[in-house]
Amino acid sequence: MNGTQNDVSDWWKTDIIDMVPGEIRLRGHPIEELIGNVTFPQMIWLMTRGDIPSKAQAELLECALVAAVDHGPQAPSIAASRMAVTCGLGLNGAMASAINMLDDIHGGAGEQAVELYSWIDNAVQAGQTLETAVPEMIDRWQTECTKFVPGFGHRFHKPVDPRAPRLLGLVDEAALAGTVSGRYAEIGRAIQHMLNTRKGKPVPMNIDGATAVIYAELGFAGPLARGLFCLSRSVGIIAHAWEQMNQGGRNKGPTPPSYRWTYSGPSPIDPKGD
Amino acid sequence: MNGTQNDVSDWWKTDIIDMVPGEIRLRGHPIEELIGNVTFPQMIWLMTRGDIPSKAQAELLECALVAAVDHGPQAPSIAASRMAVTCGLGLNGAMASAINMLDDIHGGAGEQAVELYSWIDNAVQAGQTLETAVPEMIDRWQTECTKFVPGFGHRFHKPVDPRAPRLLGLVDEAALAGTVSGRYAEIGRAIQHMLNTRKGKPVPMNIDGATAVIYAELGFAGPLARGLFCLSRSVGIIAHAWEQMNQGGRNKGPTPPSYRWTYSGPSPIDPKGD
Amino acid sequence: MNGTQNDVSDWWKTDIIDMVPGEIRLRGHPIEELIGNVTFPQMIWLMTRGDIPSKAQAELLECALVAAVDHGPQAPSIAASRMAVTCGLGLNGAMASAINMLDDIHGGAGEQAVELYSWIDNAVQAGQTLETAVPEMIDRWQTECTKFVPGFGHRFHKPVDPRAPRLLGLVDEAALAGTVSGRYAEIGRAIQHMLNTRKGKPVPMNIDGATAVIYAELGFAGPLARGLFCLSRSVGIIAHAWEQMNQGGRNKGPTPPSYRWTYSGPSPIDPKGD
Amino acid sequence: MNGTQNDVSDWWKTDIIDMVPGEIRLRGHPIEELIGNVTFPQMIWLMTRGDIPSKAQAELLECALVAAVDHGPQAPSIAASRMAVTCGLGLNGAMASAINMLDDIHGGAGEQAVELYSWIDNAVQAGQTLETAVPEMIDRWQTECTKFVPGFGHRFHKPVDPRAPRLLGLVDEAALAGTVSGRYAEIGRAIQHMLNTRKGKPVPMNIDGATAVIYAELGFAGPLARGLFCLSRSVGIIAHAWEQMNQGGRNKGPTPPSYRWTYSGPSPIDPKGD
Repeated sequence: MNGTQNDVSDWWKTDIIDMVPGEIRLRGHPIEELIGNVTFPQMIWLMTRGDIPSKAQAELLECALVAAVDHGPQAPSIAASRMAVTCGLGLNGAMASAINMLDDIHGGAGEQAVELYSWIDNAVQAGQTLETAVPEMIDRWQTECTKFVPGFGHRFHKPVDPRAPRLLGLVDEAALAGTVSGRYAEIGRAIQHMLNTRKGKPVPMNIDGATAVIYAELGFAGPLARGLFCLSRSVGIIAHAWEQMNQGGRNKGPTPPSYRWTYSGPSPIDPKGD
Repeated sequence: MNGTQNDVSDWWKTDIIDMVPGEIRLRGHPIEELIGNVTFPQMIWLMTRGDIPSKAQAELLECALVAAVDHGPQAPSIAASRMAVTCGLGLNGAMASAINMLDDIHGGAGEQAVELYSWIDNAVQAGQTLETAVPEMIDRWQTECTKFVPGFGHRFHKPVDPRAPRLLGLVDEAALAGTVSGRYAEIGRAIQHMLNTRKGKPVPMNIDGATAVIYAELGFAGPLARGLFCLSRSVGIIAHAWEQMNQGGRNKGPTPPSYRWTYSGPSPIDPKGD
Repeated sequence: MNGTQNDVSDWWKTDIIDMVPGEIRLRGHPIEELIGNVTFPQMIWLMTRGDIPSKAQAELLECALVAAVDHGPQAPSIAASRMAVTCGLGLNGAMASAINMLDDIHGGAGEQAVELYSWIDNAVQAGQTLETAVPEMIDRWQTECTKFVPGFGHRFHKPVDPRAPRLLGLVDEAALAGTVSGRYAEIGRAIQHMLNTRKGKPVPMNIDGATAVIYAELGFAGPLARGLFCLSRSVGIIAHAWEQMNQGGRNKGPTPPSYRWTYSGPSPIDPKGD
Repeated sequence: MNGTQNDVSDWWKTDIIDMVPGEIRLRGHPIEELIGNVTFPQMIWLMTRGDIPSKAQAELLECALVAAVDHGPQAPSIAASRMAVTCGLGLNGAMASAINMLDDIHGGAGEQAVELYSWIDNAVQAGQTLETAVPEMIDRWQTECTKFVPGFGHRFHKPVDPRAPRLLGLVDEAALAGTVSGRYAEIGRAIQHMLNTRKGKPVPMNIDGATAVIYAELGFAGPLARGLFCLSRSVGIIAHAWEQMNQGGRNKGPTPPSYRWTYSGPSPIDPKGD
């Protein structure tokens, strides 16, 4: 709001949105010129980064958004969204409880993978070979961060997560077309090669690792990679919550009501009476 | 998971996703065939409804998703997302606290507008004229639900919310092309005409009312209209949270720290000492 | 903050807390006089209502808070809190995702029960007999609200929820001592009698119905009954989240990983390959 | 649930709660024996740790719970809870959005302070003097963690947070009575002395630092210190949300509607028209 600047207005300073009655501009663009002229992925890029991406850039982003929408009711976030609506929440509340869970372990791997890739890329840009940078940075990651190499390994999809080769293939096409450099696809494949060799078995690049390649190729910062994963997974969260609403149910627990938990503490109840 | 059906698996029955190691199908479509071939709006539709929409349908949905991404830091949800990251939350946590607030009053108007429009449409389909159905159903809404007519009126954008005419124009184009019927645009305009007349001043169709026209035209149920609004507004929530992360700040409150609140209770502190 | 009043400060007007540097007053009481001198239940009452309750009133409130702390991992909120920490969330985040689920169906029954009881009490205060007021108001509830009579019935604890008779007994003692009137215990028992007769089988008063008797006896408004239930259940949510942290696990789903969900949609994957 | 153990039940194994129809035991104690016989703070201890504390231990815990209930509407969590109810959320939803924000920066300082204190205590138990252990561990904290020494410093309460000396005095009394060792109060005071000297001005122990002394004296693990802070602050969150419900308001933003934010991006709107 230019013209009314003071300390209270300045407390909420933003480059993102400007408004007067009857006018809205996002990143400087009148909203009515954006509606109908930019795609939703272009809008996501514009809002988070400030510029409108090319069609080719936006299409590669779109592939990452399409790929990560769901992983089924065994995923804690999806289970939570389905349970939430049976407690009386609307879709906004179900999304809140569920998206909250996409934290460091469940949804943060993409953010971490972008960071790991950039360590390796920085080393290579500084003159190191990819062959030495990959194991060095993985060792550093496992020393400084966690033993889990982010973006690789899957407890279910073995030996291959079907999304990863498809996404990498699309990055290759985009690199051929000059849309992206292809450096991060190379880094991702080098990590996979090294992990397979070290472990003596396939350690498949998973959805976090594959979408992180795209986010890094397109220049998204790590925290945004997490945010965009949350946005993508929100689609599955909404779909499952809505399906559960239609299935009905009240206070749906994690297992059928006839199953109980195992009590492992002191003074268990003697079901025959005590 | 076919082949392993039992009561535990059946507790989490779904039409949305099927998996075996190395294979994922969403609504019956292999994930690798969807990636790169459907747009993100088509994927949103597929996941929530089960079928892949035409390009024209998906483009109209895309307009609604693009239009509602942000309304600035005065919106409680956007303020919450910015405050949240200064408390230490990542983007997933900021989204959770913020999206949760898109409830009946803040984000639920779209769901309510779809419902109101459908009351009117049902009356018209049953033979009533639009001229009589609109005031009758508005009266019924104000009696049975709330005095607020959902989707109309804006405390800031007067006399016109710039998003509404743009979106209705795109619905008109889609109706001409045969993509949608145009019935809900007609209903929306009839409500606006009636409210303007009753109030003797413009009561502009707002973003909830305009996107609800699109959701109703495309056949989305009311609760999904709320969910899709949340998905769209998530983009602004992410963008603002990320901007705030870059601005820094710790424990950002609603007003600058030099401002305090007004205490209106008993035994106020005498600042000169008591 | 007296002395600095203006429109910005007034926007956050409150009777609850007053501060200057070095001084904090809650509801007019200096914080250092409250610490060590009031119990936690007295503090809860003071903060939500403005006055410090008698020891006897606070002890009855305490019984309700103690009674509702947990209902085990089959409750969706408890399951959610345990899953949440395995996704990387701290206890604050686990509490958020879990407490959010204590909505109309899962935790809102206490609020509804307080409302139903007050309908009946109002009728009796207006001269109706309890015998006619109970069925009339139950019928009205089932017509206007839902078929579920809030606070009664339990899918697991049959024929008696062990918490209900214990809590009602403590209300009886408090009524004898003149702490409360005992009217709502009478109403609760009358509802139970009527439901047992109508159904021809025990419809036990559950934890929501029993704590609602206490909240109503003590004069808490319905929405606060829900809030206090959430506060009480938070204890179980914290305990389970902390136990899960110590058990470990990553991305804990609702059922063991070897169980999958049942896919009921089109084009199921043929596990033998298609 | 003994008697029905299998892999599904074992997936939700717990020491906390045991149930059969008509019977509930928490940590081995029948619920009806706990109700009316243990205080709410004793119940909190029992649920999180497994044993029933002495009256004296529970009273010291109670002081920490009473002390931290509120810090006014300038705190982001309290502001969020007030905004949330004006968006249509009930108290459970307002609590969720607000408690979520009590993360590393806003509410996690207590957890960090417990950890810092225990570093120092471990060093002293291993034979180091308090005089050398305090600066060494503070330096280590500032190197390995953050420059912010958790639990000390306050942007508003200077030179003294009124809650800290009161709480430390109660710890001294408990140490004299043999309830606790008093070691952590000594550590807290030593940190304060060192910080005052280093900075050449008072760096007051704040509510997080003071309650962390109590939590550490009583043997609570760091993550539980955060959880208990969240439980305590929930009281203020409920009180403010309820007050806001009664004040009314729809879509309450952070500042009065007449204030807008400062737009600092490209192509600002020219309010005179462009």
